[in-house]
Amino acid sequence: MARQKPRTLSGFMELLPEKQVQFDRMMELLRRSYSLYGFTPLDTPIIEASEVLLAKGGGETEKQMYRFTKGDTDLSLRFDLTVPLAKYVALHYADLSFPFRRFQIGKVYRGERAQRGRFREFYQADIDVIGDGKLDIVNEAEIPSIIYNTFTALGLRRFQIRVNNRKILNGFYAMLDLTDKAAHIMRTVDKLDKIGPDQVRQLLMDEEIGLTQKSADEILTLISIKGSNGEVLSALNGYRGRNEMFDQGLDELTTVVNYLSAFGVPEDHFAVDLTIARGLDYYTGTVYETTMLDHPEIGSICSGGRYDNLAEYYTDKQLPGVGISIGLTRLFFVLEDQGYLNNQMNTAPADALILPMTEDLAPAIAAATTLRQAGIRAQLYTEQKKFKQKMSYADKIGVPYVVFLGEDEVRQGAVSIKDMSTGEQQTISLDGAVTLIQSEIARRANVAPIREPGDPAHT
Amino acid sequence: MARQKPRTLSGFMELLPEKQVQFDRMMELLRRSYSLYGFTPLDTPIIEASEVLLAKGGGETEKQMYRFTKGDTDLSLRFDLTVPLAKYVALHYADLSFPFRRFQIGKVYRGERAQRGRFREFYQADIDVIGDGKLDIVNEAEIPSIIYNTFTALGLRRFQIRVNNRKILNGFYAMLDLTDKAAHIMRTVDKLDKIGPDQVRQLLMDEEIGLTQKSADEILTLISIKGSNGEVLSALNGYRGRNEMFDQGLDELTTVVNYLSAFGVPEDHFAVDLTIARGLDYYTGTVYETTMLDHPEIGSICSGGRYDNLAEYYTDKQLPGVGISIGLTRLFFVLEDQGYLNNQMNTAPADALILPMTEDLAPAIAAATTLRQAGIRAQLYTEQKKFKQKMSYADKIGVPYVVFLGEDEVRQGAVSIKDMSTGEQQTISLDGAVTLIQSEIARRANVAPIREPGDPAHT
Repeated sequence: MARQKPRTLSGFMELLPEKQVQFDRMMELLRRSYSLYGFTPLDTPIIEASEVLLAKGGGETEKQMYRFTKGDTDLSLRFDLTVPLAKYVALHYADLSFPFRRFQIGKVYRGERAQRGRFREFYQADIDVIGDGKLDIVNEAEIPSIIYNTFTALGLRRFQIRVNNRKILNGFYAMLDLTDKAAHIMRTVDKLDKIGPDQVRQLLMDEEIGLTQKSADEILTLISIKGSNGEVLSALNGYRGRNEMFDQGLDELTTVVNYLSAFGVPEDHFAVDLTIARGLDYYTGTVYETTMLDHPEIGSICSGGRYDNLAEYYTDKQLPGVGISIGLTRLFFVLEDQGYLNNQMNTAPADALILPMTEDLAPAIAAATTLRQAGIRAQLYTEQKKFKQKMSYADKIGVPYVVFLGEDEVRQGAVSIKDMSTGEQQTISLDGAVTLIQSEIARRANVAPIREPGDPAHT
Repeated sequence: MARQKPRTLSGFMELLPEKQVQFDRMMELLRRSYSLYGFTPLDTPIIEASEVLLAKGGGETEKQMYRFTKGDTDLSLRFDLTVPLAKYVALHYADLSFPFRRFQIGKVYRGERAQRGRFREFYQADIDVIGDGKLDIVNEAEIPSIIYNTFTALGLRRFQIRVNNRKILNGFYAMLDLTDKAAHIMRTVDKLDKIGPDQVRQLLMDEEIGLTQKSADEILTLISIKGSNGEVLSALNGYRGRNEMFDQGLDELTTVVNYLSAFGVPEDHFAVDLTIARGLDYYTGTVYETTMLDHPEIGSICSGGRYDNLAEYYTDKQLPGVGISIGLTRLFFVLEDQGYLNNQMNTAPADALILPMTEDLAPAIAAATTLRQAGIRAQLYTEQKKFKQKMSYADKIGVPYVVFLGEDEVRQGAVSIKDMSTGEQQTISLDGAVTLIQSEIARRANVAPIREPGDPAHT
């Protein structure tokens, strides 16, 4: 027979079983964390009509889209979860209650040039709160708490949530009469971390933007404001009274900071950072980035912000909202690459492997049934192999316990159970085995999928 | 602004939030049920190279495929989870341990003519056990137990797992010297339920197949064997000794039936059914179908079987296996359509809605944080609305409890909590509220997503 070489497309993540268990565990913890904040799960099609996905207009996105026709229909694969959300809310508006809080974890597609750590198919994990006409600022203040608790649940410790408010930036540029240049300035300021303040000042004064020395200095003074949250807010207060939008942004930022401790966010995981702008048109209020302290080069692992009009391309309803997104596939790639995946997790397909040693398999099968009824993941191994091969299989799949049922055990109504980590073996009642395995499951129940290098205590 | 009418493509399921919660709960229970049997979760790309997906050759499937080019690459969306599994096992063979047991729940794509209850994008929920060279019959005997426990966990009661063995059929047709006509005969026999025995006999004797009266009678005699499992096996034993393959199939079927009770499958949920054939080339041993007793017209809701060569189009390794598949999207559609979704489930996005009644929101935020730390899904509602509108929102999202924090409560260090189902309201400590809400969560924890009409007791 002519054979086709099996292959997986480049830019598409396909994990081996142990890694998949860790990835799935991360998704499960995200679902749980988002649910604790009252977000409801949503699922939308991966394929949409191209005219619907492109309602906002093309640009870079359009070039990267997977677009094709089927019959007479012009179809595209979604490139994010925000456009489908806008469509969903506009389409089902009458059936939804606002504020509408949803999370969605799903695959999106972008035909980027494939390179290490870049994916063409990847999971995004998004939450959004959508208001009908209005949306209270407390929703923006709650987001850092969601980010903090989500990453903490995953096992990450050394990260920081960085927050700014677009109204502060826009108001400030209005003060300087630079509103028409604001977009260009923000793109330049965004390079601060990479090229330093002197080069930023130079770029701002170059022909293309053409600021005066005074304006450039004013901008660098603002974005150089550093210190504790209190110190930054206090410095910003010095600009009050000169622009209404600035003052409103500062009020909002102050509210976000003030409620941090009630929301349970430790101050050391949070910073006001005036250099953060997050794109140009879409966001209108609080903006968020999250960085790993030991890997700033990775960029933001969770970003988002407040916007005023989710679905203006589909409906005349004003739908303001706030949302954040985690690029889960890339995050997982980085975590694995940097040695952050926790090898204390049980990634075996089962908690116990049952090896029958008798002709009649009924007692072993009944034992498996009992374990499963007790919530224990039990695999029955009945292949005709040598004992050594069976134990080698148990070892390879990483199962914590092997349960043997030989003639003696069956006669005694007992099982022999081997702890694969210690090598200890004992013959005990089936109930005893259930208790033993359950205690091991309980011990590992809270093992987080992420473990930072050099953090031995943390499970 | 010119607006694009929002729409979702026909043939693509998009659920409202309450229904999505029920769908997600079904997926969660499937993951849990499959895991109990030692299956590991797998995820493969939705897009594959067309030549890889089409390695087996085209036919009906090819016409339905979503196929397109991106750059120079000929791509297709997967149309099932079996071909990607075959590719995965062939590609990662050296890294896997056999038997390899995986489950996969994911979307697949078929460009069928859209009609009510037919979907172009739909979830399949598959399990497969893949052996390396050989695979023990006990794996086939275990499948009915997985089907039984999975549907029981979902809340279904009145269903039956129907089992046959292809070796019995092939052996029987060999006895009658009809091997070359076996495929044609099986397609005809498959119509028994619809057209009855007389018409089947007529079709078998018609020119196209051209059986003798005697052969047609023999076939009808075999497939008309009915009764308890013991009675059917006993009748089949009467054919023993005439064909080796038949005898082997009967041995296998006997093994499957014999281990049923050890696997915990009640006899009334299982039947040997000699009319089941499940396609023609692929399956080689035990075959399975599952029918809803009160809705036989829906056809099988979970099917599969034993095959000898999973990945022959990709590798010269012999990889026998056994697997089953649930068409989850269609099943969900049918369940909803027939009134099988359990309205006792809590489909609200939260367990408690927190309504602050004070200027300073810190106490309400702190209360929300406490609830969340106790594992309670808590939504904070801070929109500027009239009290009546807030309560109407609580009612619409179906939240079980509303927690109020007014000046009095804050002063007393208490909360007022309203049970939305009884209308009862009380002022208690926050700890008391936590206990109350947790007990309601515990009460509903085992509410199944499916509830059969006329089955009031069952939760």
